[in-house]
Amino acid sequence: MTKSVTIGELARALDARCWGDETLSVTGAAEPSAAGPVGPDGGVIAMAMSSEYARALQPGSMAILAEGMDPAEYDLKAAIFAPRPRLLMAGLTRAFDPGPDIAPGIHPSAVIDPTAQIGAGAAIGPLAVIGPEVRIGDNARIGPHVCIGKATAIGHDAIILAGAKIAQGVTAGDRLIVQPGAVIGGDGFSFVTPEESGIEEIRRTLGPRDRIVQQHWTRIHSLGGVDLGDDVEIGANSSVDRGTIRATRVGSGTKIDSLVQIGHNVVIGEDCLICGMAGIAGSARIGNRVVLAGRVGVNDNIEIGDDVIAGGASKIFTRVPAGRVILGNPAVKMETQMEIQKALRRLPRFAQQLAKLQETVTRLMEKG
Amino acid sequence: MTKSVTIGELARALDARCWGDETLSVTGAAEPSAAGPVGPDGGVIAMAMSSEYARALQPGSMAILAEGMDPAEYDLKAAIFAPRPRLLMAGLTRAFDPGPDIAPGIHPSAVIDPTAQIGAGAAIGPLAVIGPEVRIGDNARIGPHVCIGKATAIGHDAIILAGAKIAQGVTAGDRLIVQPGAVIGGDGFSFVTPEESGIEEIRRTLGPRDRIVQQHWTRIHSLGGVDLGDDVEIGANSSVDRGTIRATRVGSGTKIDSLVQIGHNVVIGEDCLICGMAGIAGSARIGNRVVLAGRVGVNDNIEIGDDVIAGGASKIFTRVPAGRVILGNPAVKMETQMEIQKALRRLPRFAQQLAKLQETVTRLMEKG
Amino acid sequence: MTKSVTIGELARALDARCWGDETLSVTGAAEPSAAGPVGPDGGVIAMAMSSEYARALQPGSMAILAEGMDPAEYDLKAAIFAPRPRLLMAGLTRAFDPGPDIAPGIHPSAVIDPTAQIGAGAAIGPLAVIGPEVRIGDNARIGPHVCIGKATAIGHDAIILAGAKIAQGVTAGDRLIVQPGAVIGGDGFSFVTPEESGIEEIRRTLGPRDRIVQQHWTRIHSLGGVDLGDDVEIGANSSVDRGTIRATRVGSGTKIDSLVQIGHNVVIGEDCLICGMAGIAGSARIGNRVVLAGRVGVNDNIEIGDDVIAGGASKIFTRVPAGRVILGNPAVKMETQMEIQKALRRLPRFAQQLAKLQETVTRLMEKG
Repeated sequence: MTKSVTIGELARALDARCWGDETLSVTGAAEPSAAGPVGPDGGVIAMAMSSEYARALQPGSMAILAEGMDPAEYDLKAAIFAPRPRLLMAGLTRAFDPGPDIAPGIHPSAVIDPTAQIGAGAAIGPLAVIGPEVRIGDNARIGPHVCIGKATAIGHDAIILAGAKIAQGVTAGDRLIVQPGAVIGGDGFSFVTPEESGIEEIRRTLGPRDRIVQQHWTRIHSLGGVDLGDDVEIGANSSVDRGTIRATRVGSGTKIDSLVQIGHNVVIGEDCLICGMAGIAGSARIGNRVVLAGRVGVNDNIEIGDDVIAGGASKIFTRVPAGRVILGNPAVKMETQMEIQKALRRLPRFAQQLAKLQETVTRLMEKG
Repeated sequence: MTKSVTIGELARALDARCWGDETLSVTGAAEPSAAGPVGPDGGVIAMAMSSEYARALQPGSMAILAEGMDPAEYDLKAAIFAPRPRLLMAGLTRAFDPGPDIAPGIHPSAVIDPTAQIGAGAAIGPLAVIGPEVRIGDNARIGPHVCIGKATAIGHDAIILAGAKIAQGVTAGDRLIVQPGAVIGGDGFSFVTPEESGIEEIRRTLGPRDRIVQQHWTRIHSLGGVDLGDDVEIGANSSVDRGTIRATRVGSGTKIDSLVQIGHNVVIGEDCLICGMAGIAGSARIGNRVVLAGRVGVNDNIEIGDDVIAGGASKIFTRVPAGRVILGNPAVKMETQMEIQKALRRLPRFAQQLAKLQETVTRLMEKG
Repeated sequence: MTKSVTIGELARALDARCWGDETLSVTGAAEPSAAGPVGPDGGVIAMAMSSEYARALQPGSMAILAEGMDPAEYDLKAAIFAPRPRLLMAGLTRAFDPGPDIAPGIHPSAVIDPTAQIGAGAAIGPLAVIGPEVRIGDNARIGPHVCIGKATAIGHDAIILAGAKIAQGVTAGDRLIVQPGAVIGGDGFSFVTPEESGIEEIRRTLGPRDRIVQQHWTRIHSLGGVDLGDDVEIGANSSVDRGTIRATRVGSGTKIDSLVQIGHNVVIGEDCLICGMAGIAGSARIGNRVVLAGRVGVNDNIEIGDDVIAGGASKIFTRVPAGRVILGNPAVKMETQMEIQKALRRLPRFAQQLAKLQETVTRLMEKG
């Protein structure tokens, strides 16, 4: 947060309205309690987009307020009004982001294969490993301990943070962001037994097993790669497996959080949000603009339609039509889940009512 | 996929029947839509083991078909018949797998302790770290940024991919495969308070707590290692903790997927399949040929018998007898879970029926 | 386990009572079956704190027993009595822990920025990367392939194991332990759409969506860091995201297990236990001495009071008052969950009873 702009310039950059002294210098943003009065060299601007946060505002400071709030009430020197606070937050944090912690240039300790093509202006951090035939786009920034495998191609302006491992045969579009420790292109988890396995048997019978055979697992190798579109982000310590015959695919604009597992052959559409600890099993197909909240699980080989939203910790066992909002384990329509939950909480009382009713009816019978 | 064989040779290697021109050269495998007509130098073979996939077959191409399908119908030049498609897939992908992306020989940037013993033909990638007294078997391939700790012993033909961390005092059999970012031998998560903790209290009382004490956690150190059998595979960014006094153990032939957590002192039998994001808490004992589907959780200190299959996202809180198929949170027999789910979906209707019945009975009572 | 003490010294160090020949030399600890009779140079001590374990004790060996057990019954040469076995285990394992597998001194292959300040006695392993302005306390031990970003400050006696990635702008107190592969300070997962997104819509309406708009996600950058107190432990391949404007915080004495995800802006109190695969979504606030068992999920923006204990795989969607013991998905009071589970198992029978009762009442009505 070493950049500095006037609050007027900042407001214009954020396409927002400014109030008060537009010439004050802004050097960063903070919570209201950490944003003191503006000094001679300016100061940080307080994020106070709700009246709850605004209570901690300090007199003489600058703030970002929600529309309808009164800067005079808080004795501010200047303010920016946010019509859509989270959107303004995006612009503001981008304005003050010093960029990734990767120094310009190619660090001498990086091990770069002579056949790799590194784009103009790209930075490569200490002890990174860039394999043969790799292509890295212009202005990409590759962090320390990153490994990029043979013939992988990454677009321009990528940010690959410390320790991320991108295997051979991966292709990625522009502006890829990979958080530390993420793995792209590990082998798929795909095994087969010589004869029908217990899993195949119960998927067929849906019942108890009659015959248990001792068998070893034979590996199905992963010959496919991983294809990522433009503007994809992969979270810390997440894993995207390579495909068996063709590539596992993640569409443009899709964002994947930390500790997420994407299985082999999965196809994810564009502009999806796959939140922390979600998991998508092999060969599942996810539409566009799908949101999987934290810990959502998707069964293998099923299809999730466009614009589906799955609430936190939902477990999806069967296909979901486009546009549906689902929740629960197993996931059902959100309204249905709400009703089930309500009924569940009343279930112990139901049991009592039923028992009592039975008694009453028995007495009625005896009387009758 | 740079190898090339004739389709006749391939069929014989796969122990499968060949149809058509057995001399055509196969250079790889692909989905039907990506497998064009055979050219003068051969071509890739289409995987079309179901009529759904076969629809995309291109005239003049080669394909793998299921028994009973007719190659002439698709105008193929040659075909291989797969009696058990997934098994054939295993052989086929093995045949065309170019092997891991690790160059032969020992890269000069690797840091190898002089007391380490590296087997004949073993490859060690750039910037790997091999500690003192480590033993690595013949033909092992160790990827870039891999770290192997003091006195760890790994059998022959191991494949340890980029960035995997194997701590000190681990032993592994032959043909170990470790995917990128996996950790083997992190410390167990084991803490104790000076007096009874809240967890111990509620495990004893199963009720609300009467007395809450402020206590700090004292660490129980992990002096044991990890023992892996032959043919074990550990997935990307998974973690297998070391034992407290003795080793955590994974039996031969057991395959572990990505983002799986195996706690300290756990014992897993042979030929198990532990799917993505499953977790096994400390000191649990898992039998042979157990299948834990994706996201299955196993409580600490419990026992899962041989041949148990736990469906997706099951949470197992108590011991499970051998051979059982279970599902749900908490996990119960699959049939029971199916019945519970069915009843749950009807629960809101039950509530209505019960209310209505109560009314009717009240009216009957009044009448009587 | 190369240290050696007499069993008498060990008992005194553990503040426990010793029986038998106090001069025998102890070189380590093991399970009873692996602890043979004491030889001329001493031997390992058997951990036999329950009569179940004690059955495997070998005559002539040394053991740790629970109070009330009789060493003569097992023909032991010496014994230590553990009034609280797990607590004694902590002392015992600490006594024999040889410490982390990191050689003293600074390895020449480490890449250390000249502006970094390394404390006296600190060890830095092969191929570690220490960024500019980093401060590392005295006697810290930094493993191979660890990366520490710009201006991060770590207290004394830290143990950072192989491949852990600590980003820029992180501060940590003393005695920090970071297991292999953990990531501290990855970017938060925070995105916004120009207009209301589907998630915002359903959080507002709790119902099906009337209007689906195609929108891209705009990133909210993470300008905050991560602040860790004293005596914090972070597990293998876990991830703690940095904050948006202020730091994500983990209080002193809090222990975090493997494959745990802590979202941006989260505040965790002191002396908490966050077990394997638990996840805490963005901006949640967790009190002191909270225990989240394995796989517990905490929704974003909610508050968990002091001393809350959440049982295995609980999913917490709403605020939880201090001291409560909760279980289930969605999590409710443990007693309530127990009742719900009991009723659930009887649910199929309820359905039958209800149907039968309905029949009876119908017959009564007809008769009446």
